Amino acid sequence: MTGCDPKKALVLVSGGQDSATCLAIAIEAFGGQNVQALAFDYGQRHVIELEQSRALCTLAGIALEIMPLDFLRHLSPNALTDFNQPITVSDTDVPSTFVPGRNLFFLSVAGVVANRDGMADIYTGVCQTDYSGYPDCRQDFVNSINQSINLALNAELRVHAPLMWLTKAQTVQRMVALGKLEWYAHTHTCYEGLRPACGQCPSCILRRKGFDEAGIQDPLDYER
Amino acid sequence: MTGCDPKKALVLVSGGQDSATCLAIAIEAFGGQNVQALAFDYGQRHVIELEQSRALCTLAGIALEIMPLDFLRHLSPNALTDFNQPITVSDTDVPSTFVPGRNLFFLSVAGVVANRDGMADIYTGVCQTDYSGYPDCRQDFVNSINQSINLALNAELRVHAPLMWLTKAQTVQRMVALGKLEWYAHTHTCYEGLRPACGQCPSCILRRKGFDEAGIQDPLDYER
Repeated sequence: MTGCDPKKALVLVSGGQDSATCLAIAIEAFGGQNVQALAFDYGQRHVIELEQSRALCTLAGIALEIMPLDFLRHLSPNALTDFNQPITVSDTDVPSTFVPGRNLFFLSVAGVVANRDGMADIYTGVCQTDYSGYPDCRQDFVNSINQSINLALNAELRVHAPLMWLTKAQTVQRMVALGKLEWYAHTHTCYEGLRPACGQCPSCILRRKGFDEAGIQDPLDYER
Repeated sequence: MTGCDPKKALVLVSGGQDSATCLAIAIEAFGGQNVQALAFDYGQRHVIELEQSRALCTLAGIALEIMPLDFLRHLSPNALTDFNQPITVSDTDVPSTFVPGRNLFFLSVAGVVANRDGMADIYTGVCQTDYSGYPDCRQDFVNSINQSINLALNAELRVHAPLMWLTKAQTVQRMVALGKLEWYAHTHTCYEGLRPACGQCPSCILRRKGFDEAGIQDPLDYER
């Protein structure tokens, strides 16, 4: 590990509810001046996800680096046409270019960036509760890639996944406790890519269910 | 793991001596018709490395996929200017865009490609003996990323690094035993990017030393 400042953290952001919560958690722990964000441009279904990442980081007053990962487009078209690779569909987040194992790449890039910029802690919003169909969102995977990154870089980085075992309702309650509920107005969830959100697609319905269970009013604008 | 054929293997190739040897080892073990190759286009110092990868795969009669990894260029310029990240120099192979931890990316992509195409075995020419300065060439790292890939993809891939503990001379002797010494005429080592090779740069000198120690004539053309 070279020149690492244990008081700085890197947060992976996607413009969604979970990564916004991670951002608030990291800022609470490290202070806004010690947190940076990293997003990926890999041909997401909705470019609005990157716009919302920018909006959230501006709101939080932290720097955002957007890393282009064009090669994911070269990997995924084949997965889409390979009959041995069924396309996984989630109710909450389906990028048009979903790549099996993409968190291998996201966390590896985060490791290199964190090590490059002298940050010792990495936050990711992956969540085993909601995304059980994605093996690269499990705690076992996060622990393993954390070790791989440290061996590859001769570093002592720590990968945190604070939402791993929370329900959506618990995540909402955590954000309320952090006093950052209004940030959710700047997140994007709607599968239709609409702002105001459509309120009726599977992603919107799941989001609303989480707020209902938490007993909290979603600050996001909905069409209906 | 989906539709995996345990009789197929993927070999990472770079156009160099080590990956040519790995290719011969994999073909010996699996048969040429069951081996595919994967190379990366990430702004290597010498484009000739990719040309020699193509030449070797044509010679071996196997398919080669070249994956563009442009994002490595976005990672490395900062590493070059970050005083906390000294530039590592090796006598044998120094891409102008060397990225700390690049084997994180190479092996992760290989894992997704192998899993996508139903291959269970991956061969890489990384070598702890020659590249001890690069932590992502160590056996510990290879074991760890192997586990991370399998957890991420819910797969049972095996990553082989058959040259890990060999000296350059032993690698040459292995190639002789495989009856593929002439393949080395199509590999690229020269740091100056020349063909015929300059014979005088640190890379050429180290290569020749390996052949001398093995008592074998290098089939590569040298200028001097």
